Amino acid sequence: MPDSTLTLHPHRLLPADPGIRAVAAELYDSVGNLPIISPHGHVPAQWLADDVSFADPTSLLITPDHYVNRLLHSHGVSLSDLGVGRPALDAEQSRKAFRILCSHWSAYRGTPVRFWLDAQLAGIFGVTLRPSAETADAIYDQIADCLARPEFGARALYDRFGIELLATTDDPCDDLAHHRALRDDPTWSGRVVPTFRPDRYLEPNGPTWIDDVDRLAEVSGIETGEYDGFIAALADRRRYFVEHGAVSTDHSHADARTDVLSAGDAARLFTLARKQEATDEEATALRRHLVSEMARMSCEDGLVMTVHPAVRRSHHTPTFESYGADVGCDIPIRAEFTDALRPMLQRYGTHPNFQLVIFTLDETTFSREIAPLAGFYPSVYAGAPWWFLDAPDAIRRYRAAVTETVGFAKTSGFIDDTRAFCSIPARHDMSRRLDAGYVATLVAEHRLDLDEAFDVMHDLVVTNPRKTFKL
Amino acid sequence: MPDSTLTLHPHRLLPADPGIRAVAAELYDSVGNLPIISPHGHVPAQWLADDVSFADPTSLLITPDHYVNRLLHSHGVSLSDLGVGRPALDAEQSRKAFRILCSHWSAYRGTPVRFWLDAQLAGIFGVTLRPSAETADAIYDQIADCLARPEFGARALYDRFGIELLATTDDPCDDLAHHRALRDDPTWSGRVVPTFRPDRYLEPNGPTWIDDVDRLAEVSGIETGEYDGFIAALADRRRYFVEHGAVSTDHSHADARTDVLSAGDAARLFTLARKQEATDEEATALRRHLVSEMARMSCEDGLVMTVHPAVRRSHHTPTFESYGADVGCDIPIRAEFTDALRPMLQRYGTHPNFQLVIFTLDETTFSREIAPLAGFYPSVYAGAPWWFLDAPDAIRRYRAAVTETVGFAKTSGFIDDTRAFCSIPARHDMSRRLDAGYVATLVAEHRLDLDEAFDVMHDLVVTNPRKTFKL
Amino acid sequence: MPDSTLTLHPHRLLPADPGIRAVAAELYDSVGNLPIISPHGHVPAQWLADDVSFADPTSLLITPDHYVNRLLHSHGVSLSDLGVGRPALDAEQSRKAFRILCSHWSAYRGTPVRFWLDAQLAGIFGVTLRPSAETADAIYDQIADCLARPEFGARALYDRFGIELLATTDDPCDDLAHHRALRDDPTWSGRVVPTFRPDRYLEPNGPTWIDDVDRLAEVSGIETGEYDGFIAALADRRRYFVEHGAVSTDHSHADARTDVLSAGDAARLFTLARKQEATDEEATALRRHLVSEMARMSCEDGLVMTVHPAVRRSHHTPTFESYGADVGCDIPIRAEFTDALRPMLQRYGTHPNFQLVIFTLDETTFSREIAPLAGFYPSVYAGAPWWFLDAPDAIRRYRAAVTETVGFAKTSGFIDDTRAFCSIPARHDMSRRLDAGYVATLVAEHRLDLDEAFDVMHDLVVTNPRKTFKL
Repeated sequence: MPDSTLTLHPHRLLPADPGIRAVAAELYDSVGNLPIISPHGHVPAQWLADDVSFADPTSLLITPDHYVNRLLHSHGVSLSDLGVGRPALDAEQSRKAFRILCSHWSAYRGTPVRFWLDAQLAGIFGVTLRPSAETADAIYDQIADCLARPEFGARALYDRFGIELLATTDDPCDDLAHHRALRDDPTWSGRVVPTFRPDRYLEPNGPTWIDDVDRLAEVSGIETGEYDGFIAALADRRRYFVEHGAVSTDHSHADARTDVLSAGDAARLFTLARKQEATDEEATALRRHLVSEMARMSCEDGLVMTVHPAVRRSHHTPTFESYGADVGCDIPIRAEFTDALRPMLQRYGTHPNFQLVIFTLDETTFSREIAPLAGFYPSVYAGAPWWFLDAPDAIRRYRAAVTETVGFAKTSGFIDDTRAFCSIPARHDMSRRLDAGYVATLVAEHRLDLDEAFDVMHDLVVTNPRKTFKL
Repeated sequence: MPDSTLTLHPHRLLPADPGIRAVAAELYDSVGNLPIISPHGHVPAQWLADDVSFADPTSLLITPDHYVNRLLHSHGVSLSDLGVGRPALDAEQSRKAFRILCSHWSAYRGTPVRFWLDAQLAGIFGVTLRPSAETADAIYDQIADCLARPEFGARALYDRFGIELLATTDDPCDDLAHHRALRDDPTWSGRVVPTFRPDRYLEPNGPTWIDDVDRLAEVSGIETGEYDGFIAALADRRRYFVEHGAVSTDHSHADARTDVLSAGDAARLFTLARKQEATDEEATALRRHLVSEMARMSCEDGLVMTVHPAVRRSHHTPTFESYGADVGCDIPIRAEFTDALRPMLQRYGTHPNFQLVIFTLDETTFSREIAPLAGFYPSVYAGAPWWFLDAPDAIRRYRAAVTETVGFAKTSGFIDDTRAFCSIPARHDMSRRLDAGYVATLVAEHRLDLDEAFDVMHDLVVTNPRKTFKL
Repeated sequence: MPDSTLTLHPHRLLPADPGIRAVAAELYDSVGNLPIISPHGHVPAQWLADDVSFADPTSLLITPDHYVNRLLHSHGVSLSDLGVGRPALDAEQSRKAFRILCSHWSAYRGTPVRFWLDAQLAGIFGVTLRPSAETADAIYDQIADCLARPEFGARALYDRFGIELLATTDDPCDDLAHHRALRDDPTWSGRVVPTFRPDRYLEPNGPTWIDDVDRLAEVSGIETGEYDGFIAALADRRRYFVEHGAVSTDHSHADARTDVLSAGDAARLFTLARKQEATDEEATALRRHLVSEMARMSCEDGLVMTVHPAVRRSHHTPTFESYGADVGCDIPIRAEFTDALRPMLQRYGTHPNFQLVIFTLDETTFSREIAPLAGFYPSVYAGAPWWFLDAPDAIRRYRAAVTETVGFAKTSGFIDDTRAFCSIPARHDMSRRLDAGYVATLVAEHRLDLDEAFDVMHDLVVTNPRKTFKL
């Protein structure tokens, strides 16, 4: 008989072995309620600046979350029916989208999306029914009732979630008005910091580059017709971000290469690109140089650099054309760091002001490249499992792949990288449970003493993100 | 003191943790006796059409099974002594080959081959002695006695194994006489379906291509001197296979690329190839185009497409020259799917009639490429672990690598891919045991409810293969 | 409250599940005290020839061990402060370096370095305090006291460690005087064998090649101005090594390719290289040919060939320039064996006198390439996890990746590959514990009978290294 209830077991995600679980539960309990530090993510600052109320369950839980949508699409659901890349759904459409999710509940079995949704439904909205075609409407109504109440406004949830710091991801030309508004709001005691994400400005043959570089001139007040001005304008915007609280820059290109050009070559390629005459090879060479330039600037302004390359964005062009980017059809490719980052690390790898966090979707690089790099260079940190790898078994593989080469202290601490605001506590909770399980296993195998294990847990949740992101 | 008995423990391959094992045993028991669906394999249809009796233990258990032979070869045994690539062994040679296997029993420790052989010896033939130099003759005699009896004929075994469907792998020019004979045989109630395997026809610089394409014209009655006729002839043979019950086509090339040529370029390269004037680069370009053409035809005739690229076939040329292909010296190479399949998936990835199953021997692609592709495209299924990866620890790694991104419902269900008829039940049984162990672990870690776990097990054994292969 | 004691739990590194652990402990006990066979490593023969006493804890435990140093460097410690690439530290500097290690003790949590250091401190020197800033001096003094006593001299430790054979790694022009002295010393009953490591001689565009080849002529008495002489001189030095007890040659290049040149092309490229006129491409082609030549010579002189390619040596050039090679900044890159070794294996893969051991830092090759190669070619052995992979979780992954394809019998047995003499017993002990855990899991899952498990353990520790290295 199908189980119709939804409950959160207190020992969920802890190892099943009773001896290990007992230790893991103790370790988890020691950090389970610590504040959330979220130094990389995609929640709009505007939600908190304006203390928005959320319109309905679908626009909060489904439409913005490509993790949820891609699996429904893989079962034949149209993204349109989920509100993706469309004007806001009306009340009936929103309810229908929620029914689609609930009636595909079995598609999420074994996935972290299921864990996050369970935690949101039960933990935030008090849902006690397992989603299904039959229970969809009742659950929808229950969440909708919640959302109408002031304690489910954006700031109330921020407080309830125990968030200490939340980073957004922003365009270099963004005026960061919402971040400023929050900073200047005496009724707000949280911390929302921007992140400098210049990808489009560093891809000279990207579809919007000419306009982007023009806008950069406009916003910075620095001419970007020549290479030197362009570099100065980027540095200026980084300063602006630092003034508004930014702690890091974020970079995602097709590869992680950082080959440096001579000043003359860089200027020459920039001029070609401005005339739209750069070949793809030249544009790529310039981009790799510019990424290295970002590291040079980090040595000056202290912004931590994070890289997460090697994803084929919008793999299915017809979907991109209908729905836009970031809708669930980005597919990873092989990554390479050892040779790719070498030019940059030769220059800045031991600079006292430089910190680099490496994220990957290619697990093969964890033990082969990332951990060895972080285990030698003082500047390099092994980034937490990201995106498709932010999942229980993958997180365990990550710890098992990097710890033996780099220990715990040079790992970045958890990052949630999410657009789904309400999933933040569940994601951090998942990470803490899995780390507790890994560390408990070390204790149970006499590879770590128990007092050290408690230290490690506290470090992973508090010390490491602070140190990695200079908080 | 060495243990001299051979027994099959009822809990073999289930996790050792008592709590998980209890759940796993329940889950396994719920599917252990379900019929076998085998939608991809290499058993000759003739065996069943003619209801053959098997001559001797060696020609049944050793000679056709390259899994068994390659390990003996790696310990210095000559393939000749095992009957490979040679006329049938005589009685004394057959007995000697069996002795070689038994006296190398320790070479199989820790391998799935050992599991399959144990299951065949004990489960089918009632052997209770562990194979060794000392026990070889007694075991040989016991199996030989069995084989002489009618209940060990091909059809009797098919029934005893509980096979519901068995797919063979066939040349596009094959007349499928045995499949037809079975279909028309009122005394036969099983189901044996052919599979369209056109590899040689799609490799224009392959050693036999000119002859193959000529034969294609002959068999189809369609001229293949020009590109259009060649395409029409292939489509004709696919139709013939569909009429004879085929549900899928099967493709194994050095890479998985699917770059499409213009109609003009395809015709031009085909004409060059027909004159044996195509460069290797041109031949490869044509092959990649032709693989995409197979997908186009699948949208029309509904045949499911399976790909399993990236094996260096017959790695040791002297062995190939002495013994032929498929004798155990195929060695995997790196695979790549994200970019390789993109041209094909751009065109057909959301076509309602298209289904693609991706198999790999490169485990790095499970979490990085295959699961993300299957987790977005409605057409794509993550194929079960195959060949070298059809093994307990590898199967666990597969589930742990793909489930978190794609769940269970977009995985293909087990395929045995075997030439060793008697190993089919053991192979399916191994898969069921390991899936039960994985699913039980999810239950024990409170990642899945128990009622869902039973559903998942039934789906993996029944629903998924039916849906994936349109049965 | 922090635990301040250092103890070695008898069940450390064994699986935590009580049922598996009970079996693992039995299995481990059956091999825990067997002699150590160390067929690949970097301890200087001179230490044993001269029966040296060790000056101080730092020069014994820290300075020569790049595993220890790299992690300290990654936390901002200068290699100079650890004595790397510098004249010997004085007493105060040595004590200060030891304090640095102890006050960074938490950096090693979860790493095998921690396991090895614990085992050395507690097991060899009787230390009972956990290292920390507070306990550093006391521990230093305790070890220093030990080192002053004759039972801590090199030969006494060799005996105490239970070493049966120790291989060094040597330049082809080395006169092997220390090996000869040991062989001729009637008071010495151990066995120290050289290993032929010709890397620099096979890299025609390497910085020292011209001088190396000249020295080769000088030492061998054979002209090396032409290709034939060069080959003859190499063969001569191999003979010299064989006469001095060598059992293997060792090769580490950027890739594993073995493409063979025609005699004419080889001679031509050699002549170009001698004139320093070979392009990098030509130099690489010649190197790949020369690696194949080493295999040809192995068929003649019987030396086992070991390869471990694909490391970017001295990744951070400024560190190399200040401190030299082998100081912890070598970073792995992707490896490839299937195509790379094919030319060599086509020729020598089934030669009865040829044995090849493949090591890798790229775990993806374990199941994809190395195990399939070792599971077909009689000559090929799957090398034990090496360097960054000589670590508990990585060793488990290795067994889980290779065993199912190649069993146990074609794996090399453990190699420690260390420069840290006192870590040898701890490293072999770690391997035995982890293998016991893996084998016990097979028993607990009814994949292997218990009597077989004891056999496997004995084989892994004794039979396999003897067979693999022809001891």
